[in-house]
Amino acid sequence: MSKQTSRQVVLRARPAAIPQAEHFAIEEADVPALADGQLLVHNSHLSVDPAMRGWVSATANYSEPVAIGEVMRSFAVGEIVASQHPDFRPGEIVMGMFGWQELAVVTPDAVWRRVREDDLPRSLALGALGLNGLTAWAGVHRVLRPRPGSTVVVSSAAGAVGSAVGQLAAAEGCRTIGIAGGPEKARWCVDEYGFDVGLDYRSETFVNDLAQATPDGVDHYFDNTSGPITDAVLQRLTTHSSVLVCGTAAISSWDPWPTGPRTERIVLTQRARIEGFLAFDHLDALPEAVEQLAEMVRSGALTYREHILDGLESAPGAIAMLYAGTNTGKLVVEL
Amino acid sequence: MSKQTSRQVVLRARPAAIPQAEHFAIEEADVPALADGQLLVHNSHLSVDPAMRGWVSATANYSEPVAIGEVMRSFAVGEIVASQHPDFRPGEIVMGMFGWQELAVVTPDAVWRRVREDDLPRSLALGALGLNGLTAWAGVHRVLRPRPGSTVVVSSAAGAVGSAVGQLAAAEGCRTIGIAGGPEKARWCVDEYGFDVGLDYRSETFVNDLAQATPDGVDHYFDNTSGPITDAVLQRLTTHSSVLVCGTAAISSWDPWPTGPRTERIVLTQRARIEGFLAFDHLDALPEAVEQLAEMVRSGALTYREHILDGLESAPGAIAMLYAGTNTGKLVVEL
Repeated sequence: MSKQTSRQVVLRARPAAIPQAEHFAIEEADVPALADGQLLVHNSHLSVDPAMRGWVSATANYSEPVAIGEVMRSFAVGEIVASQHPDFRPGEIVMGMFGWQELAVVTPDAVWRRVREDDLPRSLALGALGLNGLTAWAGVHRVLRPRPGSTVVVSSAAGAVGSAVGQLAAAEGCRTIGIAGGPEKARWCVDEYGFDVGLDYRSETFVNDLAQATPDGVDHYFDNTSGPITDAVLQRLTTHSSVLVCGTAAISSWDPWPTGPRTERIVLTQRARIEGFLAFDHLDALPEAVEQLAEMVRSGALTYREHILDGLESAPGAIAMLYAGTNTGKLVVEL
Repeated sequence: MSKQTSRQVVLRARPAAIPQAEHFAIEEADVPALADGQLLVHNSHLSVDPAMRGWVSATANYSEPVAIGEVMRSFAVGEIVASQHPDFRPGEIVMGMFGWQELAVVTPDAVWRRVREDDLPRSLALGALGLNGLTAWAGVHRVLRPRPGSTVVVSSAAGAVGSAVGQLAAAEGCRTIGIAGGPEKARWCVDEYGFDVGLDYRSETFVNDLAQATPDGVDHYFDNTSGPITDAVLQRLTTHSSVLVCGTAAISSWDPWPTGPRTERIVLTQRARIEGFLAFDHLDALPEAVEQLAEMVRSGALTYREHILDGLESAPGAIAMLYAGTNTGKLVVEL
């Protein structure tokens, strides 16, 4: 085999807050020969996820930070083009932690799953049938566990995770309230994702709108934002309610550490439960989640939006798009 | 039966913050004749609990506020002196919600339990074998569920609940860290209640002392205080740790609503669980809890302190003593 090269996005500088294009560089590197047990994956789609901010942060997180000069950690989907492992063969489509690069040399522990639903777009393996879908599915079914008739509120409800959370909760017979930024996204919540109510948190009447939309209070809250949205929702928690903390998109920096209204009195008087959530803790649920979510996509019960960026050059600035909210669906870089 | 009168402590004004003696008045009232199904209890000991602040607060709470002019709601222990109910007979000792008064006319739903451990001081039915004991027992065994070898931190650790929490956690094989106000109470934590370490939160080196005492972080936190103590403990939470919110003694007023460091990032990255706790939700555990706790008292495995005030006149100022931390044990008014 002739010597191959691969273009890759590497971390150039550690961002203090939201990673911007300038924190990354695009480089061309030789692809090493495969060692025993390794696979060569040719990525077709790279994922852009809010969690990537944490992966490049120097502050303590659930994983080691990406080192300066290292390929940016990310989910990707691609085709195996060479294999030195008996369980994988060329031609298989796989999804996993393959990084922001064209060609990835990986071991099987980087592979999250084989993508077998070839009747559906392959990019879905990064969104509704990937990390986002697993996050929504396990968050609803394993942590919040809402009963029919209960009120479920979701922040970043027009996003890749939030929109799936709303549809999964609706499938359980819940009343669903989606919170998003701007009147257009609030309308999507209702028109595309089937929320009973869509609220624009940028509206001056937001706190009152939320009260109107939740006359019996909030039984479950799937929180992707923290910040003032969360402060307003927590005030409406009911007895024995539950809150899943999945993201903190509304907090642009944790240095200096931000303050907010103390939550202990609400937690105590309502005997509420607030629980942090990481999809990585629920990998065992992936086969069941993907099977159910794929069936919902096929039947039309799960609607999704994708926002496809073209080419590796668009990756460095893509995380900032997420935090600015300028993406219109699950953000994917197509190579 | 000749007409009886009873002295009682009534709520005179609604406190904005910590209830003080001036918010109550002592009155003498006629005791009505018993109706069918009622009991007359002659209280011997009245309880003073931190939760009583919430019971007289106008702000939303888990129970209706005590009305102005009404007898102050409280636990008490006493002897049945007359009964118009077939399941209760004069001479029985009972514990329940009998209020700050000498004689209480109640129905059986006010009775929490019959006090049968006549080898132990009757006042214990208000502390280690009452609400405090149930709170500690259910908090440890039903909510925190610590494993042997894990690190358990308790605030207000020299208090009636905290000291029992530490001893129950130690009985499970946990490393226990007690936090209390002042060097004397910190010393009690270790010398009397068997905590591995006692910390004085008033010390200038408290945050550092806590870090030294918890080299492997904090796996479980039984929080009676909120405030800066809690802010320091949360920074040391480990992955999949749990926090029980039992009280907010460090917050003197919720109007205006106090702010503090946002907790969402810690909850998220550690996948921590924060849960509000109310002993009233665990009444079904009372028989099992009392049986085990009484056995621990008899064997010396559960040490307690009582601070007995003399006479009904001492009740009105007693809640403020709790919040000032001037009591030296479970605060009880003996009639």
